[in-house]
Amino acid sequence: MTLSISTEDFKSTFRNHPAGVAVLTAVAGDEHAAMTVSSLFSISADPPLIGFSVSDASSTARVFNAADTVIIHMVDTDSLWLAKLGATSGVTRFEDSTQWDVLGSGERYFPGAPTIVRAAVVDRVRAGGSTLCVAHAVELVKSEADDDAMEPTPIVYHNRRWHRLNGSSALAD
Amino acid sequence: MTLSISTEDFKSTFRNHPAGVAVLTAVAGDEHAAMTVSSLFSISADPPLIGFSVSDASSTARVFNAADTVIIHMVDTDSLWLAKLGATSGVTRFEDSTQWDVLGSGERYFPGAPTIVRAAVVDRVRAGGSTLCVAHAVELVKSEADDDAMEPTPIVYHNRRWHRLNGSSALAD
Repeated sequence: MTLSISTEDFKSTFRNHPAGVAVLTAVAGDEHAAMTVSSLFSISADPPLIGFSVSDASSTARVFNAADTVIIHMVDTDSLWLAKLGATSGVTRFEDSTQWDVLGSGERYFPGAPTIVRAAVVDRVRAGGSTLCVAHAVELVKSEADDDAMEPTPIVYHNRRWHRLNGSSALAD
Repeated sequence: MTLSISTEDFKSTFRNHPAGVAVLTAVAGDEHAAMTVSSLFSISADPPLIGFSVSDASSTARVFNAADTVIIHMVDTDSLWLAKLGATSGVTRFEDSTQWDVLGSGERYFPGAPTIVRAAVVDRVRAGGSTLCVAHAVELVKSEADDDAMEPTPIVYHNRRWHRLNGSSALAD
């Protein structure tokens, strides 16, 4: 069976491809932006490079396509509110000033996320109506990843729903 | 708290970023390769573009960096064997000829995966010791995504373990 692929086929195929969730913030000029992405991936550990894509359709594309740095927030079940905030269109991301703070380097960030990494954008590549961004991780702003007592329960986006991973979702080896 | 980032920090940070799992196959000349990736992501639906990264350290890099097309297998709990096959180093991926078949276009593929997409590589970008690949989906070789009775249970790779997503992993909205 061979079928040509339509936009709908493609969307439904990728709806069934789960993805980790991160919230990115950036600043360009005096404009700040935040968005939730399911496209964040590790390219290499040495050098520490990550990639993500920014759709031209996103209201935050202008900021992300001009920013020198990006702040990556890994979200967990306790910070699901942040993933929802960055994923809802038409919402002012920085309305509640108790939720965010400002790094010495000028970017706004959300300290409520369990792990936060600052990265410098090193390359941008156009692909269709999107921009693939490659960024070099430069500092760990916050990390709970190595603290067993506080080990985050990460969330996964799949088929338009949020899922959590834990002991009962693990498969036997 | 601000920490500089080491290779170890970076690895442990991304160990806590879950990812969907896909198995890619490709052919270059008369050499066939298969590998499991956790870096596959959708770039745009129209045009239907996907991205993934190939580490120079992978034994299959030579084939993937030269191939004109790539066959993307979305894996589920029933095809976990395929994800393991593509993730184990030193294993001959095509040893068991009952597991794979050959497309009319020449690529080997694993019909046991629930969803299989053929894509043409349209761009390659170097990033550290890896190559970011952009591919344009050209045909749905197989799809169970829209068949409710056979809806696949996708797997997620997280912290060196395989997880499954299902009703009990879903979070309330």
